[in-house]
Amino acid sequence: MGKVQADVCVVGAGFAGLAAARRLVQAGHEVVVLEARDRVGGRVWNRELPDGTVVSAGGTWLGKGQDRMFQLCRELGLAVYPQYEQGDHLLRLDGVNHRYRGAFPVMGPGTLFALGLAFSRLHLMARSLPADAPWRARSARAWDARTLGQWLSDPLNVPSAAARTLLRSTMHLLFCADPAEVSLLGALTLARGGGGFGYYTDSRRTESHLVDGGAPELARRMAEQLGERVHLSSPVQRIAHDGTGVRIASASLTVRARRVIVATPPLLAGRISFDPPLSTAASHLLQRVVPGSIIRVHTVYPRPFWRALGLSGQTLAPRSPVPITIDQTPQSGEPGVLSSYAFSTGALRMGRLDPAERREVWLAALAERFGAQARRPSQYLETDWSSQQWSLGGMIGHFPTGTLTNYGSALREPVGRIHWASTESATLMHGLMEGAVRSGERAAQEVLTALSSGRHVAVLHERSA
Amino acid sequence: MGKVQADVCVVGAGFAGLAAARRLVQAGHEVVVLEARDRVGGRVWNRELPDGTVVSAGGTWLGKGQDRMFQLCRELGLAVYPQYEQGDHLLRLDGVNHRYRGAFPVMGPGTLFALGLAFSRLHLMARSLPADAPWRARSARAWDARTLGQWLSDPLNVPSAAARTLLRSTMHLLFCADPAEVSLLGALTLARGGGGFGYYTDSRRTESHLVDGGAPELARRMAEQLGERVHLSSPVQRIAHDGTGVRIASASLTVRARRVIVATPPLLAGRISFDPPLSTAASHLLQRVVPGSIIRVHTVYPRPFWRALGLSGQTLAPRSPVPITIDQTPQSGEPGVLSSYAFSTGALRMGRLDPAERREVWLAALAERFGAQARRPSQYLETDWSSQQWSLGGMIGHFPTGTLTNYGSALREPVGRIHWASTESATLMHGLMEGAVRSGERAAQEVLTALSSGRHVAVLHERSA
Repeated sequence: MGKVQADVCVVGAGFAGLAAARRLVQAGHEVVVLEARDRVGGRVWNRELPDGTVVSAGGTWLGKGQDRMFQLCRELGLAVYPQYEQGDHLLRLDGVNHRYRGAFPVMGPGTLFALGLAFSRLHLMARSLPADAPWRARSARAWDARTLGQWLSDPLNVPSAAARTLLRSTMHLLFCADPAEVSLLGALTLARGGGGFGYYTDSRRTESHLVDGGAPELARRMAEQLGERVHLSSPVQRIAHDGTGVRIASASLTVRARRVIVATPPLLAGRISFDPPLSTAASHLLQRVVPGSIIRVHTVYPRPFWRALGLSGQTLAPRSPVPITIDQTPQSGEPGVLSSYAFSTGALRMGRLDPAERREVWLAALAERFGAQARRPSQYLETDWSSQQWSLGGMIGHFPTGTLTNYGSALREPVGRIHWASTESATLMHGLMEGAVRSGERAAQEVLTALSSGRHVAVLHERSA
Repeated sequence: MGKVQADVCVVGAGFAGLAAARRLVQAGHEVVVLEARDRVGGRVWNRELPDGTVVSAGGTWLGKGQDRMFQLCRELGLAVYPQYEQGDHLLRLDGVNHRYRGAFPVMGPGTLFALGLAFSRLHLMARSLPADAPWRARSARAWDARTLGQWLSDPLNVPSAAARTLLRSTMHLLFCADPAEVSLLGALTLARGGGGFGYYTDSRRTESHLVDGGAPELARRMAEQLGERVHLSSPVQRIAHDGTGVRIASASLTVRARRVIVATPPLLAGRISFDPPLSTAASHLLQRVVPGSIIRVHTVYPRPFWRALGLSGQTLAPRSPVPITIDQTPQSGEPGVLSSYAFSTGALRMGRLDPAERREVWLAALAERFGAQARRPSQYLETDWSSQQWSLGGMIGHFPTGTLTNYGSALREPVGRIHWASTESATLMHGLMEGAVRSGERAAQEVLTALSSGRHVAVLHERSA
């Protein structure tokens, strides 16, 4: 087993870890990155189909306000291109396809009013949260003792049955979990970091651009610059720390460092053995921030045939096992790539089918919206994030009730020489790639401050010696 | 690394695993038990103090209806003795100690009425649940979308502020977690298995007896009978299973078996790597059943001096950092042993203090109730279950909102050759040692049925061949 020394060890080479390592290297520090998987990117992943088509199967889109991601693309020479938004979107309800344009499907004024009312109520509540300490809000305890699901099902909050169905479906999508699993305070904390739920639920804002070559190519280039500092297939098992330093033991390599940044999803961080053990608040927080369920399927066709039918590829079918589709055709316009999803309870149901049956159900759902052509893709690729050992679910971890108010203060608080990064710990764009990058840079900044004040102390000691 | 063959491998030598192994051995099967710790008993643990006094630091008491535990004590030659119940209990409120007898402290008729009303409402709701499938109850979705904490804080449910405080404190104790973390359906599921919350909250019913030598001595004797079948310090890392058998890999030993019973707390079961991966429902269930926080302190005195003061040793101080104490003096009457607890948010607060400070605060809390003598124990022993690697918290795992309705069906459902046991999966006496034993025996029965039907099939094959 190899042993190396470094100023800082970063655990995890997703966007949070890569961004942290990049910043530390830029500041002149020796950095070692330990990654459990055999690739970088974490929940951002390019997969290659048998025919050579490469598809981004995790975090994929960039949008408004995601300044750090756009900046990184520029710095690393990656072009971005706008999401295909021409033609009509489809809403499938009660066996009928309705075409529409813009953010919201065709709906009556009552539904629209109820949706507007619910969004503005949620927005007002979210705005009242301190971004870096939502657990300190005046109503924090009350909101953390109730679920988003219960809030949404109350006609006083959403005074229209159609709006309740639509909102519920949207929240299933956003958290990849039953809204009954999500704390109202936890949901508002997510909304707070994007300036309101409207940000997350409007694909024109969150999903306006794609990275040429896929967002995972950005991770690959960041890792390329870090070079041999990045060690793949090195899951970290143990972190021992004391006043003099920290020792990070992985299957292949042990790193001795002055500081460590743990940049994995919280649930995985909680499976590392810490010596001395973490405080109860920290360990119980990491246990509780659990991911939802998501299965994503890429179907490939010679051309994006739906475009010729005047369709954008974006569809919404709340009661379908595949409630969402979106066009993910590369910038060149060929081949046609459709990305479709099952979330939450739908993903659980789909997960119970055997593979052949699941493919059959899946393609039938696409054919209902796009016609018989959709049923005969040249390629079909499933990505079930729950079966990924180093993700355990997707897209992000959510906060169950009682978590933020009881354990939230441990979310970013360093423990001795251990610092924390992950999109779940971001105060801005929480849950997105942008949040991951920001959390990594925030953790790097903490470490830089600690190391320089350490140096300062060392200098003082030398002077007094 | 050793390799062995067995009919059945049992993972975990707590009461669930030991009871399962015992039953399988009695039925004539080859069994191997793999236990992560260097001792058996799991969350039932005898600790020895420097002066030689042995104290039970985990599951300790037996009570009404716990037939299997009493039966096992008889079978293994262990006496039980009644909990010391003479003298007055103490309720400390607003700086004043009130003496009382019976289940409920002194309280006004309004408080009593409100408590009675709340308990009977909870009882009615619990009774409406199918014991083996609470997620199928008519109101399951609605109850699983709200928290116990929210229910308790509603004056319509508990129409007295004093009763709300008392109930809230009781539930903190029962789940070792903020009731805001616990699903109402999850809480009712616990109540269902004991015939109502009244069972769990009345110490005269759940804590009427102690085992002479401690309940852990029962586990030790069960393990003794299993002999070399039990392998300590063998944490299981991986379970691979297919149509032909199952391979269980621990740090020290690999077992090849026809069936495996995973008899660990759910959260620990979820950290085993399964090949093929578990279904999303099963893996997400195991992620979500998280334990609370509990610190238990044993203080030892030459004699149980409180008895001479006319006190039972049982005290309740809802606002104290140490809200509960109970007499745990051995049957011989000497030395005097007091067991005291911090739970939930209180345990988090106590966990943040340094050890000397914590001891100071703890003993001051005891002295407020028992006088200056309590401040000078001859022995002081802390057990913080959250820092125990193979427990991760205590006393039991609870169900957060949305867990039972979305993933509950995976709670006992075998996955191929994998069967599940744990007190959390018990339908009767869930959360108690009794529940653990019953869950282990239920899993053993599943395995016996599977093995004998397997034999039956083999016989049929021979005949037709």
